[in-house]
Amino acid sequence: MSDPAQLPLREYLRTRREEVEQALARALPPVDGRLATIREAMRYSLLAGGKRLRPVLALTAAETVAPEERDAASLAMPAACAIEMIHTYSLIHDDLPAMDNDSMRRGKPTLHVVYGEGLAILAGDGLLAEAFALLARDPDDTGRPELAARKLATIRRIADAAGAAGMVGGQAIDLQAPGHIVGPEALDADGLKDMHARKTGALIRAATVAGAIMAGAPSAHVGVVDRYASWLGLAFQIVDDVLDVVGEDKDLGKTAGKDAAAGKPTYPSLFGLAASKRMAQEAADSAVAALSGTSFDRSRLAEIARWVVSRTS
Amino acid sequence: MSDPAQLPLREYLRTRREEVEQALARALPPVDGRLATIREAMRYSLLAGGKRLRPVLALTAAETVAPEERDAASLAMPAACAIEMIHTYSLIHDDLPAMDNDSMRRGKPTLHVVYGEGLAILAGDGLLAEAFALLARDPDDTGRPELAARKLATIRRIADAAGAAGMVGGQAIDLQAPGHIVGPEALDADGLKDMHARKTGALIRAATVAGAIMAGAPSAHVGVVDRYASWLGLAFQIVDDVLDVVGEDKDLGKTAGKDAAAGKPTYPSLFGLAASKRMAQEAADSAVAALSGTSFDRSRLAEIARWVVSRTS
Repeated sequence: MSDPAQLPLREYLRTRREEVEQALARALPPVDGRLATIREAMRYSLLAGGKRLRPVLALTAAETVAPEERDAASLAMPAACAIEMIHTYSLIHDDLPAMDNDSMRRGKPTLHVVYGEGLAILAGDGLLAEAFALLARDPDDTGRPELAARKLATIRRIADAAGAAGMVGGQAIDLQAPGHIVGPEALDADGLKDMHARKTGALIRAATVAGAIMAGAPSAHVGVVDRYASWLGLAFQIVDDVLDVVGEDKDLGKTAGKDAAAGKPTYPSLFGLAASKRMAQEAADSAVAALSGTSFDRSRLAEIARWVVSRTS
Repeated sequence: MSDPAQLPLREYLRTRREEVEQALARALPPVDGRLATIREAMRYSLLAGGKRLRPVLALTAAETVAPEERDAASLAMPAACAIEMIHTYSLIHDDLPAMDNDSMRRGKPTLHVVYGEGLAILAGDGLLAEAFALLARDPDDTGRPELAARKLATIRRIADAAGAAGMVGGQAIDLQAPGHIVGPEALDADGLKDMHARKTGALIRAATVAGAIMAGAPSAHVGVVDRYASWLGLAFQIVDDVLDVVGEDKDLGKTAGKDAAAGKPTYPSLFGLAASKRMAQEAADSAVAALSGTSFDRSRLAEIARWVVSRTS
C-alpha cells in the first residue's frame, strides 16, 4: 500500500476511512448466541459509515507530531476506534425520543426506530463501555511501560471529554436550551460557544490529542494539536449549524432544519447565515495558525481544517 | 480510628459504607454554573445510599489478599467508587420507562421521575464516563509503573464486566425475556443463570477482583476471590429474586413484586420459593468453600457471603 501521507486529500481521507472501517469491524465481538441482538444493534450504528472525522484526526495527528515513529498510526488506531464508538453512542442517545427525537441518521433509520428504545439505550451504553475496554487493552503494553503510561493518559483525556464536564454536560445544556432563543434562559453567544465546546469540541480535541499521545509526542506538540483541534471543533460546529439551514436531508444523512424547528439557539439564529459562514472560515484559519512555528510538517492537518469548512455534508 | 478488620460484621459494614459515602461525595465535581443540573442529577442517584455491597467487596478483597499492604483499602477505593458509579448508572437506565419503568429506587423517586427521561439518560452516561476517568486518574501512579499496570488491568476487567458481554448484555437478555416464562423464547434454568451472571454477577466479580488487583495481589489470589465472588453473585441474585416475592417495598426501597407482575423469569418462578432459598444458601456455601486452602485470613469474606443470604433488603 502506498504511503497515505503522499496522497491528495480526497484519497487520503478515503484511505484512512477504509482503515478505520476495518478496525471498527474487528473491534466489536461477533454476533453470537444470546447476545446476538445487542451486538447486532451496536454494529448497526457503529458500522453505518459517516465522515469518521474524529478517528481520521487521531491518525493524522499521530503521524504529524511523531514522524519518526513508524507505527504512529497503528499505535493511535485503538484510540481512534474508541473515540468513534463514543461518538456513535452519543448519536444513538441524542436521537432518542426523550432527547432530539430524530428518526434518520447517517442515511438510515435511527437505532431506536429499528430496535426499540430500551435496546437503543443499552447499545449506546455498551459502546461506551467497549470503548474503554479497547483503550485499556490495545495496543499491547506487555513489557512496554511507556505505552501503559500513554494509555492511561489517553483514557483520562477521553473520559473527561465524554463526561459531565464535556460531551454529556454539553448535551444537558442543549436539552435545557430549546425554546429559549430569547428571554432570561436563552443561551447568549458565550453560552452557545460553551455548549458546543463541551458537546462537540471536547471529543474532537480528545481525538486529536489521543492520537498525539499514543504516538509518543512530546507534551509541547500535544499542546499545539490541542489548540488546533479546539479551533477546528468550533469551525466544524458552526458549519454543522449552517448546513442544518442550507443543507439537504440526502446529503446530510439526517433531517435538515431540525434546530430551527426545535427553536434551538444556533450560530445562524444568533448571528445570521453570512456572519456564521465567515466565523467558520475564521475559526479554520485560527486552527491553521495554531500550528505555526512548529518543526513538524503541518500540511495535512491544515488541509483537513480547510476541508471541514468547505464540506456540504 | 480503630482498625476496621477487628470490628464485628455489622459495624464493619457500617464503617466501610461511611468511608465509601465520603469518597463518592468527593469523587464527583461540585454542582456549579451551567452544569449544575446534570451534576445535581448525578449526585441525586449516586449519593442516595444503598448497601454499597460492591465497594465493600472491593475494599475487603484488597485487605484480605494483601494483608502486608498497609494501603490496600486506599489503593482499592477509587475502583470501589468507580464500580458504584457504574452500578448506579445501570440502575438509572434500568428504571427508565423504556426498560423496567420503575418509579422508586433506594427509597426515593427514580431519577427520570424527578429530572425527566432525557436528563436521566445523560446522568447515567455521565456516571459511566466519570467512572473511567476516576479509574485512570486515581491512585496517582507518577513514578510507580506497577500501579499503572494495575490500573490498566482493573479498567480492562471493569469495562468488560460493564459491556455487552457483561452487564449490558445481561440487561438486553432481560429486556427480551419478559412474558416468556414458558414457550420457545422462555429462558430455562441455564438461560436464567447466564442472564444473571452477566447482569449482576459480572460487576460483583469485577469489584472483588479490582480490589485484589489494586492491592497488588498475586494472580493466584485474584483467581480465588474471583471464584468466591462468582458464587457470591449467584447467591445475591437468588436472594434478590426471593425478596421480590416475600419482601416489603419499605425494606427494599423499591417496588416489590415487579418481576412477577412483568412475567419475568426468576428463581422462584422456575424453582419455587423453598428450593430458591436452599439454592441461595448452597451458593453462599460454595463461595466460602472457594476460599479454602488459601494462606490469607478469609473470615471477613466468609461473613459477607453469609450476610448476603440472610439479608432482608
